[in-house]
Amino acid sequence: MTQTNRRITLARRPVGDVSADCFATDEVEIPTPGPGEALAEVGWLSIDPTIRGWMAMDTYLPAIEIGAEIRSGGLATVIESNNDDLPVGATVFGMTGWQQYTIMDSSNQVVPDGIDPTAALSVFGVTGMTAYFGLLEVGRPVEGETVLVSGAAGATGSVVGQIAKIKGCRVVGIAGSDEKCAWLIDELGFDAAINYKTEDVAAAIRTACPDGVDVFFDNVGGDILEAAIANIALRGRIVLCGAIAQYNDEVPRPGPANLSLLISMRGRMEGFIILDFLDRADQAIGDLATWVMNGDIKFAVDVVDGLDNAPTALDRLFTGANTGKVMVKL
Amino acid sequence: MTQTNRRITLARRPVGDVSADCFATDEVEIPTPGPGEALAEVGWLSIDPTIRGWMAMDTYLPAIEIGAEIRSGGLATVIESNNDDLPVGATVFGMTGWQQYTIMDSSNQVVPDGIDPTAALSVFGVTGMTAYFGLLEVGRPVEGETVLVSGAAGATGSVVGQIAKIKGCRVVGIAGSDEKCAWLIDELGFDAAINYKTEDVAAAIRTACPDGVDVFFDNVGGDILEAAIANIALRGRIVLCGAIAQYNDEVPRPGPANLSLLISMRGRMEGFIILDFLDRADQAIGDLATWVMNGDIKFAVDVVDGLDNAPTALDRLFTGANTGKVMVKL
Repeated sequence: MTQTNRRITLARRPVGDVSADCFATDEVEIPTPGPGEALAEVGWLSIDPTIRGWMAMDTYLPAIEIGAEIRSGGLATVIESNNDDLPVGATVFGMTGWQQYTIMDSSNQVVPDGIDPTAALSVFGVTGMTAYFGLLEVGRPVEGETVLVSGAAGATGSVVGQIAKIKGCRVVGIAGSDEKCAWLIDELGFDAAINYKTEDVAAAIRTACPDGVDVFFDNVGGDILEAAIANIALRGRIVLCGAIAQYNDEVPRPGPANLSLLISMRGRMEGFIILDFLDRADQAIGDLATWVMNGDIKFAVDVVDGLDNAPTALDRLFTGANTGKVMVKL
Repeated sequence: MTQTNRRITLARRPVGDVSADCFATDEVEIPTPGPGEALAEVGWLSIDPTIRGWMAMDTYLPAIEIGAEIRSGGLATVIESNNDDLPVGATVFGMTGWQQYTIMDSSNQVVPDGIDPTAALSVFGVTGMTAYFGLLEVGRPVEGETVLVSGAAGATGSVVGQIAKIKGCRVVGIAGSDEKCAWLIDELGFDAAINYKTEDVAAAIRTACPDGVDVFFDNVGGDILEAAIANIALRGRIVLCGAIAQYNDEVPRPGPANLSLLISMRGRMEGFIILDFLDRADQAIGDLATWVMNGDIKFAVDVVDGLDNAPTALDRLFTGANTGKVMVKL
């Protein structure tokens, strides 16, 4: 145990790209757990696109305050406890923040023995639940339908596609390199994949989805959303999960010019936030565990070492450097 | 009865504004009703924004063919019948087209005695049903919620707002003149109205809808859609009914730049076509009749005289000259 708690804090709000000067570091006193609380040492950080939103402004959560540690999910090991549910040595999931030590309480979940931290933070974590509830509750695919996923080689998209395959759908992924596309098809069982950096996306969707797109799970926004709308099937559903292509825009870019297709095709576009489904986490984790155990779902992780490299890890999401879930190992 | 059937036909597909040279006229033989059919003389035409779409391209119905009469709903009086359900003298609703004579069959509906043609073509016609099902089935307002309507002084919008009032909602309309705004408030009972030609629409919505917009019924699209999204309430619903602001665009204009607000607000945007609800027409007409009888719904009509003026009547929709339902009396 160190003498102080090193933190990466918010120095200024990002405008456009998240640059290094958005962050600062400091060392503060290690917090003392109160009644019912535990002190835990952070071991892993979950790096998610939504962090950029929290840095920039109030969204579905208040913006991170200037000078506060960067808000982030993560795993921490209990080292001192005033709570029998959080015994010393337990690995606990919570909003750890980008820092070495954090306080946990009964609102946090202990990771069961036998679950690897990388799995706990990805397929069994918020990422897996986002894929599960976003696809099944918002997108509602039916066997035989065509499901299109953007950001398909990312943490959420890769799980979305595999769940859609389990549900008997034709699955097409959009990703940013030929290597990612090959991985989607060869390793994850996608039916087709589109490299948005080298292909005409709207035309490629038309070829890969000859009956149109019944469900589009969108992690990206921007031009890819427009290309998907251009190919929407009758009564198609668009799940707005993220818009990573746009988060770094200094000026909001115009939206899709073809929204009126949603009228003639009776399309539905719906946004969701995983927080609304967390009371049903057990259901998702039960199904996901079954699918991971029987080999129907594979997950990939992109691990960056060291707390001080958390800003670099976040950047990997926006450059598309990652395949699978980005996380930081402290 | 004339010796020939005068028609207004499609001369060329519109690009941008619908100009006079999109139309031609001709006189063809009066059709002869076959077994089960009736010959009817067209008395009224329903003038709807969707006609422009039918002229331009395949949409939810195939495009009108060049040289064919303009497709249009209307009312016609039976003058010769081989169908006991369509007696001579009956007024029948159907896709009459812009012409003097049409053939009806058992798929067409006889207008009951006592219903004025202007009511049959507006509040009890496709317009009223569009308002009814679009608001209640797609928008699903709950008592106490705020409902915002664009094109509020138009045929559909004016009925939407009044149904929303009946359902106990706060209702705000967007229209194109101070006179229309005054009519919405003073005559139809809207709580507030916004003149989009003179006001900052996003700011005006914020003022008129302090708790945000729970349901936005959009007949207009374009900038007004973006302004509504900027004010959407948590779990708000946007009903895409029409996009009259865009139908005449030569180049599709960009869509709203703030779609990612649908994620953080868990918003839903959904298009619909009234054809999908016509098997439940009796339910809508029953409710609408009750509300018209007890004075809860008022309707306005904008009548243009003469078949040859049908193109002028269509133009009134796009210039916003009309208050209420535009129709042509032959």
